[in-house]
Amino acid sequence: MRERRKLIVVSNRGPVTYGRDADGNRTESRGGGGLATALRGLVEQHDVTWIANAMTDEDRVVAGEEQRETILLAQDPGAYDLYYNVAANPTLWFVQHMLWNLPYTPDFDRHAWVDGYRVVNATMARAVIAALDRDPAAAVFFQDYHLYLAPEIVRRERPDTLMSQFVHIPWPEADAWSVLPPDVRADVFTGLLANDVVGFHTHRWQRNFLRGCIDVLDADVEGDVVRHDGRATLVTAHPIGIDTVDFDALSDRDDVRERERELVASRPEQLVVRVDRTDPSKNIVRGFRAFALMLERHPELRGRVRMLALLDPSRQDIPEYADYVAAIEHEAAALGDAVDLRIGDDFARSVAAYKQFDVLLVNSVFDGLNLVAKEGSYVNGRNGVLVLSENAGSSEELGEWAVNVNPFDVSTQADALYAALAMDAAEKHRRAEAIRAHLRTHDIEEWGALQMADLDRVRSTV
Amino acid sequence: MRERRKLIVVSNRGPVTYGRDADGNRTESRGGGGLATALRGLVEQHDVTWIANAMTDEDRVVAGEEQRETILLAQDPGAYDLYYNVAANPTLWFVQHMLWNLPYTPDFDRHAWVDGYRVVNATMARAVIAALDRDPAAAVFFQDYHLYLAPEIVRRERPDTLMSQFVHIPWPEADAWSVLPPDVRADVFTGLLANDVVGFHTHRWQRNFLRGCIDVLDADVEGDVVRHDGRATLVTAHPIGIDTVDFDALSDRDDVRERERELVASRPEQLVVRVDRTDPSKNIVRGFRAFALMLERHPELRGRVRMLALLDPSRQDIPEYADYVAAIEHEAAALGDAVDLRIGDDFARSVAAYKQFDVLLVNSVFDGLNLVAKEGSYVNGRNGVLVLSENAGSSEELGEWAVNVNPFDVSTQADALYAALAMDAAEKHRRAEAIRAHLRTHDIEEWGALQMADLDRVRSTV
Repeated sequence: MRERRKLIVVSNRGPVTYGRDADGNRTESRGGGGLATALRGLVEQHDVTWIANAMTDEDRVVAGEEQRETILLAQDPGAYDLYYNVAANPTLWFVQHMLWNLPYTPDFDRHAWVDGYRVVNATMARAVIAALDRDPAAAVFFQDYHLYLAPEIVRRERPDTLMSQFVHIPWPEADAWSVLPPDVRADVFTGLLANDVVGFHTHRWQRNFLRGCIDVLDADVEGDVVRHDGRATLVTAHPIGIDTVDFDALSDRDDVRERERELVASRPEQLVVRVDRTDPSKNIVRGFRAFALMLERHPELRGRVRMLALLDPSRQDIPEYADYVAAIEHEAAALGDAVDLRIGDDFARSVAAYKQFDVLLVNSVFDGLNLVAKEGSYVNGRNGVLVLSENAGSSEELGEWAVNVNPFDVSTQADALYAALAMDAAEKHRRAEAIRAHLRTHDIEEWGALQMADLDRVRSTV
Repeated sequence: MRERRKLIVVSNRGPVTYGRDADGNRTESRGGGGLATALRGLVEQHDVTWIANAMTDEDRVVAGEEQRETILLAQDPGAYDLYYNVAANPTLWFVQHMLWNLPYTPDFDRHAWVDGYRVVNATMARAVIAALDRDPAAAVFFQDYHLYLAPEIVRRERPDTLMSQFVHIPWPEADAWSVLPPDVRADVFTGLLANDVVGFHTHRWQRNFLRGCIDVLDADVEGDVVRHDGRATLVTAHPIGIDTVDFDALSDRDDVRERERELVASRPEQLVVRVDRTDPSKNIVRGFRAFALMLERHPELRGRVRMLALLDPSRQDIPEYADYVAAIEHEAAALGDAVDLRIGDDFARSVAAYKQFDVLLVNSVFDGLNLVAKEGSYVNGRNGVLVLSENAGSSEELGEWAVNVNPFDVSTQADALYAALAMDAAEKHRRAEAIRAHLRTHDIEEWGALQMADLDRVRSTV
């Protein structure tokens, strides 16, 4: 039995969202989102206080009440909008995925940074400090790119608290960070280095962060430790795993089986599947072009292979995202009935598609990890082949057994799709088994344990 | 007196272009282009054979004749078009200046790479080998991003020839290089490492190249030496200087004085000048926006300050460049008579504007060095202030005396323009004098001498 710890988890979105039913009674729904799922293990094994922002009107009501395990914060709506819809998305997301069209965009929005991002981070930091007042021995675990400034604010008040942050998205090199003005990018790096541990999914993002500390802050870097401003920060790389028990159960769920029956009844001989948010980082447009080119090169496959694209509409308040959906629809239309495009959120259908694919296409421009590659490969029942972008974090683990592609090279992606469709059964079985074995060993529980081990490692040296 | 050497200079464009006059007689014109000027010192001091591509019809006629000092190569027109208008521009140029809009562009064009870039590089390499047959002791000096593959071809045939290459544009980090497929980016790095010396303008590009050798090729890097494939390559940073004697003379030339008289007659109290090719890397659109915002914040300057933008139309066969000119014209139109936009090539007018500016705006997205910042500051007669992008290579040298700006932050650029316009005379004088003193010391002759010293350094260790 592992040590039971006191943890304060801090993230933009919490594990629970509240609403009201038709009778006016409060309803509570657990988010299907990746982060809540990822951290469920930690929440079960440790004493966790989770601090997050109110998302719904009812969340804001809850925020005004006495709260215990989950503490929702009612942010100023104007500040929250600047923080979420300008500074975090698209600004930081686009910088970290290298999605800006630099001759034209962005024009850095300092108002959103100062009066949105910084304000929301400060509010969350104050909530962390209040939680530490109640529980001074707790360790703090910040999540992701919404919270780069909070750790430094907490650190000033609580120099001895054990603090860690995990960045779930790519960490690009210093040239990419130069899209932010010098003081802002320095604040991002300084903010993160207020933690005792900063974690990434891959060695690539870890290496970029370590170099960036030198380039942006002129910090001292020795191995995986950064020394800056009198403090030391351990920088680690632990790719997150999936909850295999959860996916075993999901795969068997009635609604998933129902969706799977529909799919089996309508599916062609071979099925190419992609499951993504409609995010410009996901490279959906080039994916359609590659599929079209593959059919052009192998006309004998027309009618025998179809592409099923299950796309969850994402961040449609942001113009770049709305434009991207339009581009997706335009490209899909050119493919006619060779593509089955479904824009919507239907998790049961996604799992059914995971089970039924012959080829799973993950061709991200850049991607922190990409959980679809793992979830799909784990659940699949046909020894389907993973076609995987070299810029997806999961390629560090799964690249050995995937057909690897460069995301900017449509022609090679077309050939990769064909190679995957044409792969012989024994080879497909060998690869699929190897991926499943890897995912069983390196699961979500291992990831959680590694996060805690990192805290122990720094605690013993503090 | 320095040692007189035998050098073979290799570049896309040569120092001379041929034509025919009305009577059908051959004409010869020395290019005003940066590279020919930059290398003039070397050509005068050493025995130089210059190998370049035929540009005009008459060049192609010359290419068929017996050639000595300048050897023009008549490339296959189809291959040359793929090489120049697809692989070199926009592909490599856009990768190295980080100008792609990655959710949508590029789609890597392997045909242009294999049947254009590689073919033209091979032809140039064969011409180098032929020149080495005539002069086996000559050292080879490759220029710029058009020639990444030629050195390796020469090296295979001439293992002991002293070879060097100077890259005049930015060298981005490995993530940016991932826009090219793995084999292609490996070929770029391997090709360059076939040289004994690889030179850049700045420590920033040098550092990025050294790290890239680790990331892309898993090469051994120790200090500024890369070991790969049994060879060692020295990687250096020497910013190119200007020919001060030449600019002293230019400044006094009749046509420049005539242009200057016109400018003086029409100029307002203060003049903000920019001189650029219409290249998306130059950030002309954001420059206009910053000037507009400055006038909005300081309406008292309306009518007293004008922006003069002298823009040389560039690479208009490439759609991204044509689109950029349209965006420039659109943005300038919004400014009305606050901007004097001149699209055309008039070097005398540029020098006149250099002499007359109060503020020189160089706000490049990314820029290998930016000679305008140096030429303008040297020639200027009003102690004008340089507003300089932190992503222009020349900021490593001149940043200390410039008003520095982040190229993506329009608001700060507006404030920088105002600060430069409002700077007091003593401070302007101090800064302008410091820049001129720097440029006098670190001139084009020093740069040439440093290139030769690098060759000596590696020759002594070979």
